[in-house]
Amino acid sequence: MKGSAGRAESAGPPLASAACAEGKPMVWSRRNLLGLEDLTAEEITLILDTAEAFEDVSTRSVKKVPALRGRVVVNLFFEDSTRTRTSFTLAAQRLSADVIEFSVGTSSINKGESFWDTARNIEAMGVDIIVCRHSVAGASALIARNVGCSVINAGDGCHEHPTQGLLDIYTIRKAKGRIAGLKVAIVGDVANSRVARSNLHGLLKLGADVTFVGPTTLVPAAFAQLGAHVCHDFDSQIDRFDVINMLRIQRERVASNVFPSLREYSRLFGLTDERMQRARPDVLVIHPGPINRGVEMSGDVADGRKSVILQQVTNGLAVRMAVMFLCKQAADAG
Amino acid sequence: MKGSAGRAESAGPPLASAACAEGKPMVWSRRNLLGLEDLTAEEITLILDTAEAFEDVSTRSVKKVPALRGRVVVNLFFEDSTRTRTSFTLAAQRLSADVIEFSVGTSSINKGESFWDTARNIEAMGVDIIVCRHSVAGASALIARNVGCSVINAGDGCHEHPTQGLLDIYTIRKAKGRIAGLKVAIVGDVANSRVARSNLHGLLKLGADVTFVGPTTLVPAAFAQLGAHVCHDFDSQIDRFDVINMLRIQRERVASNVFPSLREYSRLFGLTDERMQRARPDVLVIHPGPINRGVEMSGDVADGRKSVILQQVTNGLAVRMAVMFLCKQAADAG
Amino acid sequence: MKGSAGRAESAGPPLASAACAEGKPMVWSRRNLLGLEDLTAEEITLILDTAEAFEDVSTRSVKKVPALRGRVVVNLFFEDSTRTRTSFTLAAQRLSADVIEFSVGTSSINKGESFWDTARNIEAMGVDIIVCRHSVAGASALIARNVGCSVINAGDGCHEHPTQGLLDIYTIRKAKGRIAGLKVAIVGDVANSRVARSNLHGLLKLGADVTFVGPTTLVPAAFAQLGAHVCHDFDSQIDRFDVINMLRIQRERVASNVFPSLREYSRLFGLTDERMQRARPDVLVIHPGPINRGVEMSGDVADGRKSVILQQVTNGLAVRMAVMFLCKQAADAG
Repeated sequence: MKGSAGRAESAGPPLASAACAEGKPMVWSRRNLLGLEDLTAEEITLILDTAEAFEDVSTRSVKKVPALRGRVVVNLFFEDSTRTRTSFTLAAQRLSADVIEFSVGTSSINKGESFWDTARNIEAMGVDIIVCRHSVAGASALIARNVGCSVINAGDGCHEHPTQGLLDIYTIRKAKGRIAGLKVAIVGDVANSRVARSNLHGLLKLGADVTFVGPTTLVPAAFAQLGAHVCHDFDSQIDRFDVINMLRIQRERVASNVFPSLREYSRLFGLTDERMQRARPDVLVIHPGPINRGVEMSGDVADGRKSVILQQVTNGLAVRMAVMFLCKQAADAG
Repeated sequence: MKGSAGRAESAGPPLASAACAEGKPMVWSRRNLLGLEDLTAEEITLILDTAEAFEDVSTRSVKKVPALRGRVVVNLFFEDSTRTRTSFTLAAQRLSADVIEFSVGTSSINKGESFWDTARNIEAMGVDIIVCRHSVAGASALIARNVGCSVINAGDGCHEHPTQGLLDIYTIRKAKGRIAGLKVAIVGDVANSRVARSNLHGLLKLGADVTFVGPTTLVPAAFAQLGAHVCHDFDSQIDRFDVINMLRIQRERVASNVFPSLREYSRLFGLTDERMQRARPDVLVIHPGPINRGVEMSGDVADGRKSVILQQVTNGLAVRMAVMFLCKQAADAG
Repeated sequence: MKGSAGRAESAGPPLASAACAEGKPMVWSRRNLLGLEDLTAEEITLILDTAEAFEDVSTRSVKKVPALRGRVVVNLFFEDSTRTRTSFTLAAQRLSADVIEFSVGTSSINKGESFWDTARNIEAMGVDIIVCRHSVAGASALIARNVGCSVINAGDGCHEHPTQGLLDIYTIRKAKGRIAGLKVAIVGDVANSRVARSNLHGLLKLGADVTFVGPTTLVPAAFAQLGAHVCHDFDSQIDRFDVINMLRIQRERVASNVFPSLREYSRLFGLTDERMQRARPDVLVIHPGPINRGVEMSGDVADGRKSVILQQVTNGLAVRMAVMFLCKQAADAG
């Protein structure tokens, strides 16, 4: 990988054939990234390898490659998210793109304009990549069908959040050296989590063994049909996992009675110091952020040596650079 | 035009004397663009020709010319408008300028600072161009009198919205090859429309024949004094127009009883499929956006072959690049 | 200074040893700027001299030096301030940095994330400089202790606003040629003013004689312990000052009964035309803005020849460029 990283430094883009380990060069041909369910294992690996080549850009003093110079990335966020938006913006700037915030709260959507018209208008302004977040599953796919530029899904309802799934998998691969064969727990509000879905699809394709952990209200038994194990008793399996991905508990859910109280949830499913003692010594703890300290996990676990939560944030930039770079390249070629 | 477009590609700015068709080079000497009423036909033509030279920048993969590198454009919007603001921002970025949003809602204006002090403070920060939108007619002109940098009016009350007028005229000229002699209908809430006023002034100066169409509450007979025909019966003249510019109906107006209902308005003045049948076969349909589908026009008309509504959006960038470029050049020279 | 300014033009950064007038080169070693109380006279002078070298950048047509190219500056404003934020943004852009707004109102802080986690997450995204404003004294220092990147305090509660103090002192030095020995009045709501505190610390270190002026409710006698004179009768000393720094009166304070009315305040402590007649002929009037015309001073005084209020705004950019440049350089070296 060092070789292509070196090339990235001088000319900008690393080779698209980064993942040609088996001798047959893999070429990315997708203009959009809408979810990990659609991708092949090879495509996911290509993104991870490309991200690896981009990772060192973020550690240099001049954090820039000219790969997307003169290109325009629009953040079209119908749901607010400072962190994800900031991560995409920084990633785009590192590729030398111009970034525009299209603040929907104040836009023409309020004047009764249709969703389509907004997307088509943005495209007509000569935009190259639309990064879209929306509370409705399938929103990014709908936009992608109506425009010619690239669309990257930054979260659509309870459906997928593919770049979060990719940065989680990237972080695991970097720490563990592989994905195949790893036992990964995804703990918490799986039923409502697009992060859980994107992780599941990506991890299964790369050969991991995935277990959803949580109370029956948040982890329905039927979810086993998606290919994951389902576990309602965290303690009975805590010593089995190589990786524990703690989902964020939305405090709003408490009111809707899916579990009795935050304290009760934390007692049964939180990563407390005590429960952590019974985990594997080499367990890796990840979390999509922001953390509710004392709910999903203790502050000591969050800041402890087994946690790579801040590395996830750092890796998110490299992964998003890779996704934007590959999609733009495919759009140019197509 | 190809020649100067080619030059634009290498060195950035196209020749300011783009409009020297008659042998006498036209030089732009205005620091500000406040309205089309002030301009001569030659000045309007110079902007259109300069925009033509810039148009291809937006279609290149690297959408940049260095014309405004190191210059600062401030969006000073007292009224919100995501579309217009985004268009100016993208246009400025394509000229390599830095763009700052001066969000007035949260600014010192709320702390009791005067309008003047805000403008003078922005100027004192070394800004080159202020793009101003305000709900009061004349606001941009007031700012222009108080600062030394360039001021571009992005809409002032019911007065003017010159870059919208220019992009409409640019789109018509591009489709029809000329403006002189064309019969143009401007349909809808003319009384409250700065878009209608800027279109009228620009079109009349370039020799078009303009008709305001709408109910008497929205198109007072007295408007004939501005130089337009006034028509209250769209159907009687629908087959006469080369261009139909459908203004946006503000749904808020319905409450104020200027017309009985949206359905009634649409029946008499909307561009329905049926009415469109009776228009000229080569009629051009434009709209400043965002469209109320089913009110001003049917979805089929909006998306149909006679509509150039999305081209208007695309052309808006080239026109705004031209305006910023010319005003900056004049400010430097002055 | 011309020499190093010339070098700034070609290579970007002026020499860090700008302040080596006495033969011993001064080197800046601080990663953060949290307040002027911490600094030595030599450090303050080094910032002022570096700002002088950067000042001409703002007057050139291409307002750019490559000093912070590829670096990222994050505006982390927990209290809103369009002016200060805009000034930092423009300064960072002139150093060729990328600037990100981290809008806290809509961020994860609202989702219950801790202050620390937000700062650590921003750092994990590879940010170089955090510019922080917060309503609590010490907030920037707390962040600085938790991150490895540079932190610049843009105002923390009633504590300090060091870049405002520096730009005030820079403006005085530029107009008067020196700071040592000058008699400076700071007039108004000193008790609640971070601007007053930063001015005081900086001015005292450079040898000025500082007097706090205001009613006892706003200027407690105990403030003499900070090293300033305390004066409750402006008229008795008005003819003594070389510089008068009029603080902004927060209209909200009137309600809290610290003074009877704005008119009463203005009568006793405002810089009226009449009172200005009795000031020294060469007095310099400054104000941090935005001005309440007719309260702290008359419009004629604000716009008069003794006022350098707009120059303060202009100088703010050079001072902030200097601070960001020096802190970044020290962070790289450390």
